[in-house]
Amino acid sequence: MDAVRVCVVGAAGYAGAEVCRYVAGHPAMELVMATARAEAGAALASVYAALIGSTDVVLVEPDAEAIAEASDLAFLAVPHTAALALAPALLSRGVSVVDLSADYRLADPAAYRSWYGTEHTSPELLSEAVYGLPELHRGELAALAARRAAGKAVLVAAPGCYPTAAALACAPFLETGLPISSPVIVDAISGVSGAGRSASARTHFCHADESVEAYGVATHRHTPEIAQSLSWAAGHEVGVVFTPHLGPYKRGILATCYLQTAEPLTVEEAHAILARRYGDEPLVDVLAIGEQPATAAVEGSAKALLGVAVDARTSTLIVTCAIDNLGKGAAAQAVQCANAILGLPEETGLLRSLPPVV
Amino acid sequence: MDAVRVCVVGAAGYAGAEVCRYVAGHPAMELVMATARAEAGAALASVYAALIGSTDVVLVEPDAEAIAEASDLAFLAVPHTAALALAPALLSRGVSVVDLSADYRLADPAAYRSWYGTEHTSPELLSEAVYGLPELHRGELAALAARRAAGKAVLVAAPGCYPTAAALACAPFLETGLPISSPVIVDAISGVSGAGRSASARTHFCHADESVEAYGVATHRHTPEIAQSLSWAAGHEVGVVFTPHLGPYKRGILATCYLQTAEPLTVEEAHAILARRYGDEPLVDVLAIGEQPATAAVEGSAKALLGVAVDARTSTLIVTCAIDNLGKGAAAQAVQCANAILGLPEETGLLRSLPPVV
Amino acid sequence: MDAVRVCVVGAAGYAGAEVCRYVAGHPAMELVMATARAEAGAALASVYAALIGSTDVVLVEPDAEAIAEASDLAFLAVPHTAALALAPALLSRGVSVVDLSADYRLADPAAYRSWYGTEHTSPELLSEAVYGLPELHRGELAALAARRAAGKAVLVAAPGCYPTAAALACAPFLETGLPISSPVIVDAISGVSGAGRSASARTHFCHADESVEAYGVATHRHTPEIAQSLSWAAGHEVGVVFTPHLGPYKRGILATCYLQTAEPLTVEEAHAILARRYGDEPLVDVLAIGEQPATAAVEGSAKALLGVAVDARTSTLIVTCAIDNLGKGAAAQAVQCANAILGLPEETGLLRSLPPVV
Amino acid sequence: MDAVRVCVVGAAGYAGAEVCRYVAGHPAMELVMATARAEAGAALASVYAALIGSTDVVLVEPDAEAIAEASDLAFLAVPHTAALALAPALLSRGVSVVDLSADYRLADPAAYRSWYGTEHTSPELLSEAVYGLPELHRGELAALAARRAAGKAVLVAAPGCYPTAAALACAPFLETGLPISSPVIVDAISGVSGAGRSASARTHFCHADESVEAYGVATHRHTPEIAQSLSWAAGHEVGVVFTPHLGPYKRGILATCYLQTAEPLTVEEAHAILARRYGDEPLVDVLAIGEQPATAAVEGSAKALLGVAVDARTSTLIVTCAIDNLGKGAAAQAVQCANAILGLPEETGLLRSLPPVV
Repeated sequence: MDAVRVCVVGAAGYAGAEVCRYVAGHPAMELVMATARAEAGAALASVYAALIGSTDVVLVEPDAEAIAEASDLAFLAVPHTAALALAPALLSRGVSVVDLSADYRLADPAAYRSWYGTEHTSPELLSEAVYGLPELHRGELAALAARRAAGKAVLVAAPGCYPTAAALACAPFLETGLPISSPVIVDAISGVSGAGRSASARTHFCHADESVEAYGVATHRHTPEIAQSLSWAAGHEVGVVFTPHLGPYKRGILATCYLQTAEPLTVEEAHAILARRYGDEPLVDVLAIGEQPATAAVEGSAKALLGVAVDARTSTLIVTCAIDNLGKGAAAQAVQCANAILGLPEETGLLRSLPPVV
Repeated sequence: MDAVRVCVVGAAGYAGAEVCRYVAGHPAMELVMATARAEAGAALASVYAALIGSTDVVLVEPDAEAIAEASDLAFLAVPHTAALALAPALLSRGVSVVDLSADYRLADPAAYRSWYGTEHTSPELLSEAVYGLPELHRGELAALAARRAAGKAVLVAAPGCYPTAAALACAPFLETGLPISSPVIVDAISGVSGAGRSASARTHFCHADESVEAYGVATHRHTPEIAQSLSWAAGHEVGVVFTPHLGPYKRGILATCYLQTAEPLTVEEAHAILARRYGDEPLVDVLAIGEQPATAAVEGSAKALLGVAVDARTSTLIVTCAIDNLGKGAAAQAVQCANAILGLPEETGLLRSLPPVV
Repeated sequence: MDAVRVCVVGAAGYAGAEVCRYVAGHPAMELVMATARAEAGAALASVYAALIGSTDVVLVEPDAEAIAEASDLAFLAVPHTAALALAPALLSRGVSVVDLSADYRLADPAAYRSWYGTEHTSPELLSEAVYGLPELHRGELAALAARRAAGKAVLVAAPGCYPTAAALACAPFLETGLPISSPVIVDAISGVSGAGRSASARTHFCHADESVEAYGVATHRHTPEIAQSLSWAAGHEVGVVFTPHLGPYKRGILATCYLQTAEPLTVEEAHAILARRYGDEPLVDVLAIGEQPATAAVEGSAKALLGVAVDARTSTLIVTCAIDNLGKGAAAQAVQCANAILGLPEETGLLRSLPPVV
Repeated sequence: MDAVRVCVVGAAGYAGAEVCRYVAGHPAMELVMATARAEAGAALASVYAALIGSTDVVLVEPDAEAIAEASDLAFLAVPHTAALALAPALLSRGVSVVDLSADYRLADPAAYRSWYGTEHTSPELLSEAVYGLPELHRGELAALAARRAAGKAVLVAAPGCYPTAAALACAPFLETGLPISSPVIVDAISGVSGAGRSASARTHFCHADESVEAYGVATHRHTPEIAQSLSWAAGHEVGVVFTPHLGPYKRGILATCYLQTAEPLTVEEAHAILARRYGDEPLVDVLAIGEQPATAAVEGSAKALLGVAVDARTSTLIVTCAIDNLGKGAAAQAVQCANAILGLPEETGLLRSLPPVV
């Protein structure tokens, strides 16, 4: 088939540039357009030297009409609220959208208003959008693929980085109906790329280097998204305490999740639940009992690594998940979703790829 | 008064070398001897170039008799089990001991056997030893000071790095009798110096750099020590889940502690409890509401920094504590204990010091 | 064609594992065997978690007979002297060899003896071996390809990491006959992976982190190899001063080379020389005047990036080259050489690849 | 004597904050005022958490009149040009000045114009100002001390970070009259704190981390300052090629200096020259032959560490110097100069100090 023509909106940011990396190396996609307001006019490879020789796309200002003319599929790597108008504008012009922003992740517009402090202006799309965590929403993505094959533009809401790690870790247990004393505690740490490409006091090397700190404690916007995923998996509402930390490294999230189990569970049983759930997944690996995932093992990769332990003294299940926040936590997962709605094997272009851009 | 003559046993390790750093810069101590088996014969400053010009002590093999002849006070910066014989040998020769190993921290020899896998061979000292977390055990240290002033050699069991951070964070709340649903979850991360100076696969730069991983999940030996401190503070047994992580930096621990409160508690109330508890402490600072401690702010320092938040949706109290694992988590705290038993202001020699050795 | 059957000797080391990474993702190669004495019996992916799911090769002890039975081509990622016997053993059994060790790089066995302190035991191969820096020795590699096509096993001596960077930077100028006052100064810095996977005092995170130091000053074994490359390019002997440094990062070399020019040279002329020389190279990019390569831009990649400046006040040409020491400085270049002798486009399997292993 | 009342101008920048660190811990100085335009109104300790508990100074806008009223001595930690008006304003009000900016370092106002692109507006002070590298200008600083003791306000131009390292490394050899083929090559690397506290693309963690790059090649403004120091030492003009690099760490400079010697020099002779020159210096240590300084050994310290090697094949003397760019390269050296003009031992308050602020 002809290569799918792809536009990446917000290509100068880290997540957007990583989408470009995967698209430029993808056997079935062509990077035909990349937009970035501030850097319009510059070659993408002049912003990200790792892409020299791999793409000669020149950044342009985003424009729905121009995007629709050039592309079949658009990735929106934009801050929240920016996709509220852009996604409908593209969909109505026949362009399918994988949105990496937070705008279509929360099913409930009231939750969006409450956590993002602004009214959702295209709530009618919330029921259409599919939450793009393929390992947990494969059927819904297949339905989108069918609609797209029938000529309809479709919308995927790619998950946040922390919610991806937390959901991959916890969902298999909640799906089994294992009784859990709420709340689930998700303690996670991210590399600095998670704070974005804007230069700020927090992203200054001399602030972040050799240091760890918690942030957004009890207030981080990924909390309701994690709770939504865990509640979907459990079939009932699950409370979540989420504490993100900033760590002195570029890429990678480690989520350490604590579930108090009301019934005894051995580590062998816990491991079997994970292994069964993800045994056939090309992008999720479960480590042996006694091993723990290191974020470095997924740096620059599209994969998630999982580990599990049980603290029998306190009936606590401890599940850890390492992903690259820009990979399985953002760009790679967005491309995985795109593959799904294009009817391609999900891992297409994700295992062998151009080198990371940052 | 004459300077107290100090011997540091295990001076080639990170904690031992940091004790030497503080002692060599201390206005009332003199570093008269430093031992290290493998490096015996070398100048300490040839092992730690940061000490060039600050001390010309030459490392020697440890020998109780020689130590007793030369010193009034010995710091034992040795692996667990190494102090089981050495501490009694020194005490019986009139040398007071600040032991940085785990050997005299657990009051219950059965717990020692269970977690350290070996029989405690000097259990009679366990009731004499004082757990050296001065902010929580000041009275007991004062009693030791009195005994020492009366000519008796005394023994301090300096706490582990993680337990120091966890206890400083949680004890003030437990002391108030605040009802807490057990277990308390302590999720913590340490820099690589916490793994010691031995070269190993885990401490290789290319393994540790740009990576975070959990280790010792549900099995780390600091767990019973944390539980002991929290139980002492609460006045009853408190369950603890403890997960340490290894982070890509040299020095510093951040402990993020989760306490499920049975009664509503506002963040202002929580902050007031901490502020009251530590208001007069020279080595503990409590940040304002909304601020979170970064480990870099205590790198190379003797201090602890605390932050607090409340997740009202789930009735979770989240207390964070940053220390330098080699500072307040080891060497500086050991010197603070030594100051206490010498009758000096606890912070003597700790605020202004020689630069860090690693 | 059938995939070329490849054996990697020394696969547990960083360079060997990176060769495995490239081979396992290579469209025309198959990783049929990987050897490692110390780790024999373990799955390669258990040593390098980044390879989980990408290869299930199990490490075995190296044995020439077994290698010859299983493979068409062997990469030797071994310490110097280890290839002295192994390369002839494989060649005589019909296995072509790309040797990443230093054993066949120096044309003069006396230089080998002098710098490596041991007699060369297979000097007869030195005239057969081709120095595997394809951009500078393409014709010789083509000749090997022809010999191999004719059924002969051939030997490539893949260059050292520092020499690759220095030669790519300096050779184009020396080839033009530009008069240079000897010696050329090569000041370079490498990430810690250059020191290998063995745990040691120097590779301990707490030693290497946050620090830079020179090492092997005036004595590093890459000096004669750099001088050999520069002399080949100039057509006469060129003196070289080489100072390597160890930097606090995992991967990457930056070489800053100083050439005192006897005739004035503008930066435009200097840039034109580089641009002409490397304009068609798939794995070498020359930055615009005023730009300088950062090692991060080639981290995990197979490429070299070059920059140039002229200090007119002192008639000094300053050429900088960034490579990944494990990429273009080792594994990627070795695979590039293998591609060349297999008659494949040199960049095959190098632009899109599995993620880095370390 | 009463504590000297000190004002630090530009206290929110890294160098200024480090001056505050040293002053706040200094036995003979009192930090009475600290200025910072952007952060005026905030406590210094709220900007630098490491200073919590050590100073309660609140940042104010800089005002010459107010500074003169409150202080005896002012440190100017300001960008170049900012001291052109401020230094005369303070001197005329009787306040002695240690200027950390570049404004009074170059003796020749034409060089200032040429390299800084602006006219020097207080050139009459250039002959009064003493270049504050105490190890090389001790006599001139003593003369300032005498003038100050006589009631005159005096001006010290504290050196740049790179020039300090280069001058300490090279001056002893040039002072001996050793014939050197010009130019001297100074290849140096700095941690990111050298780029200042402003958030920018270059200081973003994700840009600087895991990367090394050259910058300001052939154009860096420290070049004429290095040349001036080397020429002073030699007694005749010395050409200099200077290439700074940015390294992935916070603090520290390593300068590797290459001098082509016209006469043979053994490493023993070279080492003896350094050892003699700095044998009595409290803040400069010379390592043994065969050892090389690591920047980590001077991180957070006031010291310089020197190493030397000779490449006999090419008659090249290679001298390395490690300093903390914020320590001996900025704040500590400024305090050392202040001690000198106050008639105190130069190292007062520099060996034992508060912990680093960044």
